Amino acid sequence: MEMEKEKILELLNTHPIRVAELHDIFAEMNVVNIADIFKDESKETILRIFRLLPKSIASEVFSYIEGDEQQLLIEALSDNEVRDIMNRLFVDDAVDLIEEMPADVVTRVLQNIPSEKRTIINQMLKYPEDSAGSIMTTEYVWLSEESTVRTAFAKIRKNGVNKETIYTCYVIDRDRLLLGVVSAKTLMLSNEDDKISDIMDTDFVSAHTTDDQELVAGSFRKYGLLAMPVVDADEHLVGIITVDDVVQIIEEEHTEDLEIMSALKPSEEPYLKTGVLQQVRNRIVWLLFLMLSATITGGIISGFENALAALPLLIAFIPMLMDTGGNAGSQSSTLIIRGMALGEVNFKDIAVVLWREIRIGFLCGIILGIINFIRIYITNGKNSLLALTVTVSVLLTLIMAKSLGCLLPMAAKKLRVDPAIMAAPLITTIVDAASLVVYFSIAKVIFKL
Amino acid sequence: MEMEKEKILELLNTHPIRVAELHDIFAEMNVVNIADIFKDESKETILRIFRLLPKSIASEVFSYIEGDEQQLLIEALSDNEVRDIMNRLFVDDAVDLIEEMPADVVTRVLQNIPSEKRTIINQMLKYPEDSAGSIMTTEYVWLSEESTVRTAFAKIRKNGVNKETIYTCYVIDRDRLLLGVVSAKTLMLSNEDDKISDIMDTDFVSAHTTDDQELVAGSFRKYGLLAMPVVDADEHLVGIITVDDVVQIIEEEHTEDLEIMSALKPSEEPYLKTGVLQQVRNRIVWLLFLMLSATITGGIISGFENALAALPLLIAFIPMLMDTGGNAGSQSSTLIIRGMALGEVNFKDIAVVLWREIRIGFLCGIILGIINFIRIYITNGKNSLLALTVTVSVLLTLIMAKSLGCLLPMAAKKLRVDPAIMAAPLITTIVDAASLVVYFSIAKVIFKL
Repeated sequence: MEMEKEKILELLNTHPIRVAELHDIFAEMNVVNIADIFKDESKETILRIFRLLPKSIASEVFSYIEGDEQQLLIEALSDNEVRDIMNRLFVDDAVDLIEEMPADVVTRVLQNIPSEKRTIINQMLKYPEDSAGSIMTTEYVWLSEESTVRTAFAKIRKNGVNKETIYTCYVIDRDRLLLGVVSAKTLMLSNEDDKISDIMDTDFVSAHTTDDQELVAGSFRKYGLLAMPVVDADEHLVGIITVDDVVQIIEEEHTEDLEIMSALKPSEEPYLKTGVLQQVRNRIVWLLFLMLSATITGGIISGFENALAALPLLIAFIPMLMDTGGNAGSQSSTLIIRGMALGEVNFKDIAVVLWREIRIGFLCGIILGIINFIRIYITNGKNSLLALTVTVSVLLTLIMAKSLGCLLPMAAKKLRVDPAIMAAPLITTIVDAASLVVYFSIAKVIFKL
Repeated sequence: MEMEKEKILELLNTHPIRVAELHDIFAEMNVVNIADIFKDESKETILRIFRLLPKSIASEVFSYIEGDEQQLLIEALSDNEVRDIMNRLFVDDAVDLIEEMPADVVTRVLQNIPSEKRTIINQMLKYPEDSAGSIMTTEYVWLSEESTVRTAFAKIRKNGVNKETIYTCYVIDRDRLLLGVVSAKTLMLSNEDDKISDIMDTDFVSAHTTDDQELVAGSFRKYGLLAMPVVDADEHLVGIITVDDVVQIIEEEHTEDLEIMSALKPSEEPYLKTGVLQQVRNRIVWLLFLMLSATITGGIISGFENALAALPLLIAFIPMLMDTGGNAGSQSSTLIIRGMALGEVNFKDIAVVLWREIRIGFLCGIILGIINFIRIYITNGKNSLLALTVTVSVLLTLIMAKSLGCLLPMAAKKLRVDPAIMAAPLITTIVDAASLVVYFSIAKVIFKL
């Protein structure tokens, strides 16, 4: 690919430009790789390459190039050229474009979209963010019940080139009520005279326009789908979602989960494309909230200053207790958050899960506690009371951390809050406070402080 | 679906069993939903339902039911019945089965696989875990260069029903060298007499048998593929990978990443199917390692006991400093780990990334520091020296945490260690120690301790 890029840039500088030779190179290349050529090039080069693309692939290449360069092109191209792109762009890509571009570019785009397509796009922009309606496209092949396999093939041959997929066709009645689906495989393996109503699959999986994209992705995974029809409240077909978009959505959802679980405000921009100030905004709110919460833990320590003054050795075990509690709690919360996202763990399992985590916490606590006992006993002049204090604290901290680590995400889910919030940062802060209370209370009892 | 399950269980209890009626119900159902019926049923019911499935769908249903029930069936069915399943099972599903089952079940499975298929399966079992070779399947449609669209269609109609996909066909020469790919779309939109060599796409994306599945998933995402050919070192076609499997792989990789990032030993078993002892094993190693590392932090505190004895107030800010440093560091490490996984951040960007993180750390540190100064000044009797100590420590901790949070994952990647290890738990432990050293050192300077 690097070689092809060099060749293309070289040909750009020939006079006169050898367009035929360029077109031959483009014809051999994957459109995604052509889109990669635009990366990090000057405005002038981007414009020149784009104008030299064969018309038939220009809009597809456009859909794969990055936001910055898309914006640059729309601003620099003529109205006619923008119209050409928008004419051929699939509506889901057009919607993505409009959602990402600044207002003046959006105006330019909408002015150059045929009015019929603009109506569809405006409709899709009204669906809630991340809903099936907002990610679907309207370029699908529809068939009527009465047609035959022969007419279906004729229709695919006539219109198929402009459809997102031709591998699943949708059977609708006159009111666009979705009756069934037929795969291209079924069509190919049937007789030409078979009626669509006889070969269509009526037990299909569909989504409603308002369904969340995570739900849609889950169905694709469960049923191994290539495409899924989207229907409105009255079961009328309004669009389809294809698996290539679902693969992207799964990655986006995963990034979002990771960000929420790490106390970050989710952002759709790649790391290097997000400005420093925006990064600060994405991080500071949670940092501030967690910092203020952690001062409560500090207050707890202050509350035990008599105990600490009497036995300064206690201080040395604070970091170990805090870190271990936080790690133990986030292990559990991660497993539960992920298990719920995959549908493997549900709220009804709460008693089972809690009882498991208590046992796991107990066993891990025993092991870590014993190791601590031995270490402290040896390194602190056979101070068995101190060793006992730390050991019991570790055990109770583990049980507490594991219990909170599973209960809080499950409670969040029940309260329709994203369980990912109940991940390491928040769990750590809560478990820290709880474990220090336990630690100092035990110390007071054992040392009679 | 619940309704259908009830109906099926009801029909099982009729005498004589109304098989035709059952088959009608099964015919209307998605195989994935049929597989769901087996969940949580008794051994006897599972066997009875499985034996009543139409032969044509039995092996497909088998591939979707869960491991426990697959094992139960293989143990209980006759040799003939097992042979029937194995005959029709796609080889990638057979490989999955063999990898998951205990040894005695595997023996039973291998004994009942036709020898030709067994050779292929044994070959695939030799590929490294999670490599393209280990996840591919061998049921694809191949064409020769000289054939026409007409003969291609004839071939698909004849053999297509048993192929994982017919939507991409692979063009090979007599030595199985992969020459190009043709999509079913291209076939349908071409003339019957067109030669395959004229319409095939020679700029296809392929994987080598030893490529990691994460790389494969990345190509599917980048190019929006439905299937990808897998070739050996000499570019001979040996199998294909289809997008439905890739969707599963992406989810598995996400789970694995999350687990590693939360100090867990990755496990492929769902949460509720993993025993308590196994869970303890998956968690204890990291907990132990991190606990022992955190005792170093405890040692640091002990090293400053003179300072602490002179100014016990310092203790109250330890939890806030530790938590804030940990949170700030894991924000950065999460973004960098994810950015590298998506290919948005590379090692060559290390200077840019570090400079960004230092500025972000500085700005966040200034904000958090000022808030701390005001709070401490007000609540600690206008003790501006104490407020200053904490404020400067927060600022330096933030810059340090952000720097380590980006440097450690990037260094790990460079050293070919999974960057996900450099996530919250490890970063927190390291930043904790560093921030306390900074804190006490500053206190010693400011208070001349």
